[in-house]
Amino acid sequence: MDTGQLTVSLTTMIEDLAKIGQTDDGGVTRLLYTDEWFQAQQTIKNWFGERGLTPFFDDIGNVYGRVEGTNKEEPVVLTGSHIDTVVNGGKYDGAYGVLASLVAVSELVKEHGQPKRTIDVISFCEEEGSRFPLNFWGSGKLTGIHEGKDYHNVQDIEGKSFLDAMHGKGFGLGHFQEPLRQDLACFVELHIEQGAILEDAGESLGIVKSIVGQRRFIFTVTGESNHAGTTPMNKRKDAMNIASQLVHKLIQTGHEMDEHFVATVGQMTVTPNTPNVIPGKVTFTLDIRHHRSATLDVYHKQLNTFVDELSGSDVAISVQQYSDVIPVDMEESLQAIAHDYAQHQQLSYRYMYSGAGHDAQILGAKVPTCLLFVPSVKGISHSPYEFTNENDLHVGVKALKHIIYQLAYN
Amino acid sequence: MDTGQLTVSLTTMIEDLAKIGQTDDGGVTRLLYTDEWFQAQQTIKNWFGERGLTPFFDDIGNVYGRVEGTNKEEPVVLTGSHIDTVVNGGKYDGAYGVLASLVAVSELVKEHGQPKRTIDVISFCEEEGSRFPLNFWGSGKLTGIHEGKDYHNVQDIEGKSFLDAMHGKGFGLGHFQEPLRQDLACFVELHIEQGAILEDAGESLGIVKSIVGQRRFIFTVTGESNHAGTTPMNKRKDAMNIASQLVHKLIQTGHEMDEHFVATVGQMTVTPNTPNVIPGKVTFTLDIRHHRSATLDVYHKQLNTFVDELSGSDVAISVQQYSDVIPVDMEESLQAIAHDYAQHQQLSYRYMYSGAGHDAQILGAKVPTCLLFVPSVKGISHSPYEFTNENDLHVGVKALKHIIYQLAYN
Repeated sequence: MDTGQLTVSLTTMIEDLAKIGQTDDGGVTRLLYTDEWFQAQQTIKNWFGERGLTPFFDDIGNVYGRVEGTNKEEPVVLTGSHIDTVVNGGKYDGAYGVLASLVAVSELVKEHGQPKRTIDVISFCEEEGSRFPLNFWGSGKLTGIHEGKDYHNVQDIEGKSFLDAMHGKGFGLGHFQEPLRQDLACFVELHIEQGAILEDAGESLGIVKSIVGQRRFIFTVTGESNHAGTTPMNKRKDAMNIASQLVHKLIQTGHEMDEHFVATVGQMTVTPNTPNVIPGKVTFTLDIRHHRSATLDVYHKQLNTFVDELSGSDVAISVQQYSDVIPVDMEESLQAIAHDYAQHQQLSYRYMYSGAGHDAQILGAKVPTCLLFVPSVKGISHSPYEFTNENDLHVGVKALKHIIYQLAYN
Repeated sequence: MDTGQLTVSLTTMIEDLAKIGQTDDGGVTRLLYTDEWFQAQQTIKNWFGERGLTPFFDDIGNVYGRVEGTNKEEPVVLTGSHIDTVVNGGKYDGAYGVLASLVAVSELVKEHGQPKRTIDVISFCEEEGSRFPLNFWGSGKLTGIHEGKDYHNVQDIEGKSFLDAMHGKGFGLGHFQEPLRQDLACFVELHIEQGAILEDAGESLGIVKSIVGQRRFIFTVTGESNHAGTTPMNKRKDAMNIASQLVHKLIQTGHEMDEHFVATVGQMTVTPNTPNVIPGKVTFTLDIRHHRSATLDVYHKQLNTFVDELSGSDVAISVQQYSDVIPVDMEESLQAIAHDYAQHQQLSYRYMYSGAGHDAQILGAKVPTCLLFVPSVKGISHSPYEFTNENDLHVGVKALKHIIYQLAYN
């Protein structure tokens, strides 16, 4: 195996792909069904073909590179990630996983010939939910979670119709194969960590045990706007007073849960938001994540207690939960393959939880799934500063290659 | 004295003036040097003339109605308020004081003839600071506090030049008398309370002891934006966490000061303000008011302690004070006249502090000044729902008339 040659090829592809949708400050913006997105998927499709995989689109714009197995009746080994990005995101989020799968599979074929089982490398069309109020559009259509939904009223922030955008790029018209797959054996995804746990510990590989569950809430604290000078403190219905206490309790309680629990108040809107007026209304979001639903339940119950304690005759608090993503466990037997490999190679590694969502959580609810992480420098992601060292990129590809070999050749 | 006739006349004038700049939902918008503002000042000028006062503009657009005194060398008794409004404000804020002074003075002349001392009723051109980043433009020019300032770069929110706006209405060009006055004996202002203290206590008249001092601050809490899912709680530099604690402490401490102290966090901006990103920066305003500088100092010192306690290696807090208005005491001898009148008339009244700013605080720093309040229903002000009962309006006019009589005829 010519390691030097391979990593040059991988990093060159990463850099070349990042030129499609490149932003002024070195980031990447490739939103679903835009010209940049389409150019990227066509580039991936070409690269699949150039490396001997059989390339094809499905009808929502996922791109496949297939290597047929000798045993055609056996279910398919799927590997890959996504090439859409957030606005002004990085070069590695998603793209690394797609290109790493391509490199791993093309090397396996070169070294070992045709696999027993068919391998599909996939470049998912959409994972981020950055343009339309959808996410996991690609993996969701593969697994059927979007079935029966009506997309006629879905629009992007500029009011452009989702269906028009899809049709405009030739998808959703029945020209390609249906995205739904019933023939999958398993899914393997390699991704950058997007956090700093591996880097802080000086480790090269993360073997994901579970992808966290996530609940999101909007809190609305309603008091009464009034003059900041003429309203005595004991006559106020100050929404900011109650909101600040509630936010502090919510974050503090997040700190008091176990080390894997996270709680974030990321967005706040104050009305009327004027220095000399007592706020009559404060709304804010809360995002909580953990890999066990029972732990989320404990926090959720505490949250309701805080709301009851702070609600009064003066100030009303309402809570609306607008997202409830359940935790998804990765397949233990696949984790074991990664673990044995890391030990055998004397890699520094850890079992960990993914705090971010990934296509692996959608696939993982349907088929045995494996998710591996490589370190993100300073944990930075969704940013032009997103970076992973070349050596770490290479470690990930080798681990991925080993797992796919075990799944498709043994 | 024909009481019925007089109050009808006052309320009719209030209603008629409110038609100038009337908004769709029954409020009033009259911003400095707009067409509506000019029409209102011309209307006031006409009403001055119709009721026997000698009307004239000064060079910034303050309108006077003068009654010459028999003793011309004695300093002038000034009374009035302002006719500019906030955006979609009420009918009474300012306008009531101007029209009440007009009614009181014209009645005095009718009943008692020419006064010993000259009385000027004034309709200040500007008090609210609603259009340009100025306030007390009218009373400030009378007393000289704006001297030496350069207004060439002052603009409204639409980018329209302050000087162009003033010149466009014929002011600031030397066509009228200089606004600065050196010949004033005293100032008497009648105003709606804009709070609910009088109404809650069932009282008719407020005799203001002091107009509060006011300090405004902008706090900037700077941490680091990061992924809400992949950043463990103990690795976060969460600006919202610190900001919520600080806001809570600031408001709570406001509650623990004496009953006249108020503290308001009215405006907050969160960056990047996205549900799934830990806030890297939170800025918010704090407005504190009290009638004693020493009390403001105590709180201010406590504020700095909180900032020191909550600042750390992870999160920095900066505080910028952008406003410092000192408390202004009203003249005790004038309060005593109001007090004796209220007792003699068996009015329910109280001594109180003004939490809002008024022209009386600008005049009060230069000449003996008296500020009286009548109740605001539900304490609502700066709103189309601002309202004061006709009987309360009438009580105010009678008290004002008595005080002016004592000052100008005795």
